[in-house]
Amino acid sequence: MNDRPQTPLLDRVDVPADLRKLAPDQLRQLADELRQETISAVGTTGGHLGSGLGVVELTTAIHYVFNTPDDRLVWDVGHQCYPHKILTGRRDRIRTLRQGGGLSGFTKRAESDYDPFGAAHSSTSISAALGFAIANKLTNKPGKAIAVIGDGAMSAGMAYEAMNNAREAGNRLVVILNDNDMSIAPPVGGLSAYLARIVSSREFLSVRDTLKRLARKLPGPLHKAAKKTDEYARGMAMGGTLFEELGFYYVGPIDGHNLDQLIPVLENVRDAAEGPCLIHVVTKKGKGYAPAEKSADKYHGVQKFDVVTGAQAKAPPGPPSYTNIFAKALIAEAERDESVVAITAAMPSGTGLDKFQDRFPGRTFDVGIAEQHAVTFAAGLAAQGMRPFCAIYSTFLQRAYDQVVHDVAIQNLPVRFGIDRAGLVGADGSTHAGSFDVTYLATLPNFVVMAAADEAELVHMVHTCAVHDSGPIAVRYPRGNGTGVALPETPERLEIGKGRIVREGKKVAILSLGTRLEEALKAADALDARGLSTTVADLRFAKPLDEALIRKLLTTHEVAITVEEGAVGGLGAHVLTLASDTGLTDAGLKIRTLRLPDIFQDQDKPEKQYADAGLDADGIVNTVLTALRHNSAGVSEGARA
Amino acid sequence: MNDRPQTPLLDRVDVPADLRKLAPDQLRQLADELRQETISAVGTTGGHLGSGLGVVELTTAIHYVFNTPDDRLVWDVGHQCYPHKILTGRRDRIRTLRQGGGLSGFTKRAESDYDPFGAAHSSTSISAALGFAIANKLTNKPGKAIAVIGDGAMSAGMAYEAMNNAREAGNRLVVILNDNDMSIAPPVGGLSAYLARIVSSREFLSVRDTLKRLARKLPGPLHKAAKKTDEYARGMAMGGTLFEELGFYYVGPIDGHNLDQLIPVLENVRDAAEGPCLIHVVTKKGKGYAPAEKSADKYHGVQKFDVVTGAQAKAPPGPPSYTNIFAKALIAEAERDESVVAITAAMPSGTGLDKFQDRFPGRTFDVGIAEQHAVTFAAGLAAQGMRPFCAIYSTFLQRAYDQVVHDVAIQNLPVRFGIDRAGLVGADGSTHAGSFDVTYLATLPNFVVMAAADEAELVHMVHTCAVHDSGPIAVRYPRGNGTGVALPETPERLEIGKGRIVREGKKVAILSLGTRLEEALKAADALDARGLSTTVADLRFAKPLDEALIRKLLTTHEVAITVEEGAVGGLGAHVLTLASDTGLTDAGLKIRTLRLPDIFQDQDKPEKQYADAGLDADGIVNTVLTALRHNSAGVSEGARA
Repeated sequence: MNDRPQTPLLDRVDVPADLRKLAPDQLRQLADELRQETISAVGTTGGHLGSGLGVVELTTAIHYVFNTPDDRLVWDVGHQCYPHKILTGRRDRIRTLRQGGGLSGFTKRAESDYDPFGAAHSSTSISAALGFAIANKLTNKPGKAIAVIGDGAMSAGMAYEAMNNAREAGNRLVVILNDNDMSIAPPVGGLSAYLARIVSSREFLSVRDTLKRLARKLPGPLHKAAKKTDEYARGMAMGGTLFEELGFYYVGPIDGHNLDQLIPVLENVRDAAEGPCLIHVVTKKGKGYAPAEKSADKYHGVQKFDVVTGAQAKAPPGPPSYTNIFAKALIAEAERDESVVAITAAMPSGTGLDKFQDRFPGRTFDVGIAEQHAVTFAAGLAAQGMRPFCAIYSTFLQRAYDQVVHDVAIQNLPVRFGIDRAGLVGADGSTHAGSFDVTYLATLPNFVVMAAADEAELVHMVHTCAVHDSGPIAVRYPRGNGTGVALPETPERLEIGKGRIVREGKKVAILSLGTRLEEALKAADALDARGLSTTVADLRFAKPLDEALIRKLLTTHEVAITVEEGAVGGLGAHVLTLASDTGLTDAGLKIRTLRLPDIFQDQDKPEKQYADAGLDADGIVNTVLTALRHNSAGVSEGARA
Repeated sequence: MNDRPQTPLLDRVDVPADLRKLAPDQLRQLADELRQETISAVGTTGGHLGSGLGVVELTTAIHYVFNTPDDRLVWDVGHQCYPHKILTGRRDRIRTLRQGGGLSGFTKRAESDYDPFGAAHSSTSISAALGFAIANKLTNKPGKAIAVIGDGAMSAGMAYEAMNNAREAGNRLVVILNDNDMSIAPPVGGLSAYLARIVSSREFLSVRDTLKRLARKLPGPLHKAAKKTDEYARGMAMGGTLFEELGFYYVGPIDGHNLDQLIPVLENVRDAAEGPCLIHVVTKKGKGYAPAEKSADKYHGVQKFDVVTGAQAKAPPGPPSYTNIFAKALIAEAERDESVVAITAAMPSGTGLDKFQDRFPGRTFDVGIAEQHAVTFAAGLAAQGMRPFCAIYSTFLQRAYDQVVHDVAIQNLPVRFGIDRAGLVGADGSTHAGSFDVTYLATLPNFVVMAAADEAELVHMVHTCAVHDSGPIAVRYPRGNGTGVALPETPERLEIGKGRIVREGKKVAILSLGTRLEEALKAADALDARGLSTTVADLRFAKPLDEALIRKLLTTHEVAITVEEGAVGGLGAHVLTLASDTGLTDAGLKIRTLRLPDIFQDQDKPEKQYADAGLDADGIVNTVLTALRHNSAGVSEGARA
């Protein structure tokens, strides 16, 4: 759809070794070409744009100065790594980004030696880089480890834990703080205010002051270099006491788009640092592409777009997303009940809480990338009588698991969890899949775990959460659009632990949890057409189970299939446990549990991913037919291929 | 065993309101009596001693100055709360601490209004207190929220996440940093070095300097108060830039055993703070009891002891603990293989890694209370070719769950996990129980999950971990002593996913995972005596399952029972899933899964806890007999009461 840009210099660079053959004065042009190629590629595939454009010069400078891949470069989150992929042997596949079978949208060890550590969740880079640095120290290898981490990612506890342990790495560790004053949403909290103060106070230090401070603080060669180049000195100021107190040499702030500053600073840190260094680089998200610079949030993740106009392909029309339905339903609850408050960990837009915030700014808490704090903060709010909703993606709730167990479940506090992006998520791949939440929540005493089968159900479940004061409760729902069902005018309070029969039959029972219900119903039609009368139940609750309904379904049908959008240990396991606890298997019970496969599935279209997992209508039908064919002597033909 | 101390003042204090009736000059005596009572009580029950003794004056001062329970006091970890319990209506039960049916060794909401938030895991207090403060702000309630957190707990990321969000609380939030330079083990990392610098540089600020700085930094009334009292001024110095940068007023350091400093500072912060305050209090662990002061680590957690001599009751003689066996086995692996390194999160002694550290100081990494960093750091080490062992308690590994999923499992990196304290743990109660690890790990693709049935098995499994380079692998083992079996001279490499038959029978099959094996064998004897010939298998692996062995056992016995030391979703669920996947349930399968009950069990002796759970020999026998009696019409009598 877009013309390929002219990139004569970039065409000569396949891997960083080629880059290092260029003269310093060619790097500006190379960076410009790299930027054009990035824009062109993302215009074709969609994906993360602004973050990558912000680090074009930084990417170029790092690969020019450091000896990658022997020096280990770890990109935090990894959504800014497209320029890095272009420079590290993957340009030929760059227009397959985030497509099935194509390049991952994040760093990935399996893709390249230049990706020593995969990412996607935030704030892991310093810990990983420290691992590389210490391994080199222990084995007397020469390589450095470089972590590039955004200011937003610095709000997460694990970044701080890693910084607190950095001293052991000595000068093998370089942390580059990419301060673009914007992770996905505008930054929050004390740290970001602090960084802003550093950056804004930069002019207060004269060159003379800077040199004096450098003379005192920096190792000799760095000091000499600083004296030599005005540009360099201007780009550096000591002021990062917070980082210094944790044991780093702080260098910055530096203009992250100025290669004449970046290159000498990186070279000096490479050659002369005596301990772990933190280089504070200031960049602009979306740099060099006007539409992205103007609207950093809208160009964080994009659809395919026209490079000339910036116009993004419109998402296919359809029913509203589950995220939007959740937000609207929550706003309605908050209108009725002023004790309802909402908490997000740096995902106001992704969770729909930006809309809640518009309506209830004082009752919305964006805590930054800090899921652990989010959950225990919510527990404190609940203990003081509020009705807090934590809206967190399934995959990110993993980061607060201990808080869910220790602060919420054990204390039986009524924290409400809105678990977005449950199940497979498509282009973001395995790192963002919400595969485990039913398993890791339903094993906990006191918890109520629901999954919405459609958007009307989600509305009921949000209401059920709001009025459920006796303990923790969670509702999970997927990425993407609803099914288009009519929304209830007045939400119902669902009875805890009660499912519903959606379709009555006689021979086959499908016990569905979540939005596979649509496929289950399709499967039922297909089975009916083959003369296999099929019941479909929407269990609604993974915990507590609707024991009466399940036992009835299991005992009155010839075969029963559980269907869920999660890994082993979840709904199917709980249904089987109920069956064996109550002796239902004793006399013979034809039951199969359809679940996500025991692999981490790569990115693809969600419907393709579910089909691969056997979790579409065809998969359900095949499982039923195979089970029915299975002889009753206990010799298996294998229900799952 | 010990005489009760004379406590005339303390006898008049049942709740803090009584305390507030005392004159300020009586508080010194009250604190002394409180200390004696604490020593006497812990002498009787055993438990955490040093931490409580360190905060006797602080506890007294907080309850004297603040209006508890309306002001919400949150003790971090909670192991220092015994003096607090004595002052808050629980003195009559203080000699039941940590006993079955007695007071919890930690704060607990169910026990008292003075425990607004339960604890036991570290570093949750600021988040919870922030929840209380914000709830009060939203509802216009007057109360403050006070978090008391140790310097060790400050190394955890979630404390930092909370601090980063503290500004919103305004002056409703007071954080008291209890700096005893010692959490359980000596502190590590940049932060603790930083705190030490603050404390050691305190004398450098003259009273005049202090007043000047106060005049600039503190709100008016505080400033006036500072001018008035020399003691106060001496106790305060501005220097906590790290905390100030995150948005706190920093006050300190203050002598935490000097009530004449503590009381006015707390009063001023209570009355005059304009934003969140962090009060830096310096205390001595074990203060006022010579044996505990001299050996802070040995008196952190104690057996019953003689108050006069300090002599602790000896632990009953027995085989070495699993922890010790793990440490020895790991040292042996490290002798053979220099790529073996060990990581602990502030538990060198609890995990046995102190012994590893004695032998391999350069290959041991204590990262502080920072499980998230520990795991991703280990992943980085593994990615660079090392063979890292993370030794973390089951319950604390919950705090690194996302790192286990995202950094280890998805990347299939060979990080080895030594999961100590798996299963029930006795006196520490539900917060420390290791109930969920099999469930939350075995649901993950790529993971190998083992449980040791005895200490010889543990030795084999540590070796198996060491040589398993193809992906993540975990071995879990319980708190307490081994069974006394002979240890292997040379450890074996176990075949991944292969169990073993321990005892052959014909009618009943017990499929055991972990150290319930002993009870399973006892149950087998009892069943045999009843004419029910019983096979006992030690499955060794929760993942991958020994499918051939399990299918054979299920199809050749009349009834099969799985036994595990974990909650639903673990071994039993996986065995049932295998059975239904392969159609074994179709023709009838009498199978029951014994597991931990769906409640959080309070502290008690472990054998009592397991008996309550039906996981002792009697419980196993009863389950078998009930299952066998169960008629085969599918009508349940209920296998579990």
